[in-house]
Amino acid sequence: MIGRFRSGDEVFYGEIDDNRVYPKNGVPGGTFELSELRVLPPACPSKIVCVGLNYRDHAEELSMEVPKNPILFLKPPSAVIGQGDKIIYPACSSRVDYEAELAVVIGKRCKNIAASRAMDVIAGYTCFNDVTARDLQQKDGQWTRAKSFDTFAAFGPYLASTEELDVSDAKVSCRVNGEIRQASSTSNLIFDIPHLIEFITEIMTLEVGDVIATGTPPGVGELHRGDSVEVEIQGIGTLRNEVV
Amino acid sequence: MIGRFRSGDEVFYGEIDDNRVYPKNGVPGGTFELSELRVLPPACPSKIVCVGLNYRDHAEELSMEVPKNPILFLKPPSAVIGQGDKIIYPACSSRVDYEAELAVVIGKRCKNIAASRAMDVIAGYTCFNDVTARDLQQKDGQWTRAKSFDTFAAFGPYLASTEELDVSDAKVSCRVNGEIRQASSTSNLIFDIPHLIEFITEIMTLEVGDVIATGTPPGVGELHRGDSVEVEIQGIGTLRNEVV
Repeated sequence: MIGRFRSGDEVFYGEIDDNRVYPKNGVPGGTFELSELRVLPPACPSKIVCVGLNYRDHAEELSMEVPKNPILFLKPPSAVIGQGDKIIYPACSSRVDYEAELAVVIGKRCKNIAASRAMDVIAGYTCFNDVTARDLQQKDGQWTRAKSFDTFAAFGPYLASTEELDVSDAKVSCRVNGEIRQASSTSNLIFDIPHLIEFITEIMTLEVGDVIATGTPPGVGELHRGDSVEVEIQGIGTLRNEVV
Repeated sequence: MIGRFRSGDEVFYGEIDDNRVYPKNGVPGGTFELSELRVLPPACPSKIVCVGLNYRDHAEELSMEVPKNPILFLKPPSAVIGQGDKIIYPACSSRVDYEAELAVVIGKRCKNIAASRAMDVIAGYTCFNDVTARDLQQKDGQWTRAKSFDTFAAFGPYLASTEELDVSDAKVSCRVNGEIRQASSTSNLIFDIPHLIEFITEIMTLEVGDVIATGTPPGVGELHRGDSVEVEIQGIGTLRNEVV
């Protein structure tokens, strides 16, 4: 598993093994205890491509039709936060929801990638919380405003490689204040990851570090100020954020 | 007026005066003839925030209700092209439209900017073509896919400063193969630029170089392969692209 870390003024990627971090690319200072480092979001995306309604039962939960092709929207890089960062509840919304998702981080600049070759362009997988101002989503029709507030794209803590995590059946769950709210598996995805990559790269060039959030399972619901929200994917870890 | 240019391997911003370019920030080599430089998009946005339906008559033209607040969507940085670059007609669409717009380029990292202070964060104004796969926009409901293809965010050629251009009544027009298709003025905007900046920065932090496309006037229509499309704003210049 790979993470992105800060130690003092130094920012670096490192391999995590048994709570020790081994910096990549010759960062001076040897190895670190995981606990002495600040964990940063494991990529710096130029764009975050999100997929709406990609679990059959979540589409039903929202009384929305199961789409015939992936429905895409973008979150801006300014919305990114990482492990332990605060989710800021916007003053202009009165209904903010969590959405636990598995996210793909791109490892190779790419365009027009067939599903059969999609694994070659993946750097790894991570946990993603697609925080959404549900009231504004419904009011606007277009989803962008509701999903683009600063702090509304939480992801991390680490990247599991395509060898480390089998995404044909990865367990995705969400807890709020320790209580389970979402629990599903990527086996329930309508459009699987290779097909998402084919679909998206037919439209746009993906850059190294770009993030694809693959959609959320049923059980979405409200967050309140003071809540602690956790997105866990077995084999990656748990992304924790507090709402303020 | 300011532009971004390439000469050999050197990329730089320069002041344009009477067809001569005066590089900023001490680029070596003195001054240049405008004609000997490659003109690049006048900013490198981390995000492009676009406003839908911001001319009253364009909303009517599409039989859409005049919105009560700005409707936002994002285009990814991967869609950016500049003066003279080609717009690539995607194989999966059979209806691609031009949309001439005035765009704002941000000059200062900012959040929560009141309309009264909005002029302080503007680097300048430029021409923008919000190219749109209209058939996919209607099919998806969400506008992101239709507007995010590579080459679908054309802007340039130069930046006019807030002193150089009065945006209370800037003339925006679009020509296809020399024939006028759109001709309006920013005096017809539903939400003016200061109010857009207030609205957008309530949601997200804007970075230096970020672009706000302010919406298109009536007269949107089809492009075909081989067309030459021009977006002109009096006081800035003409953005020209060919469709291939």
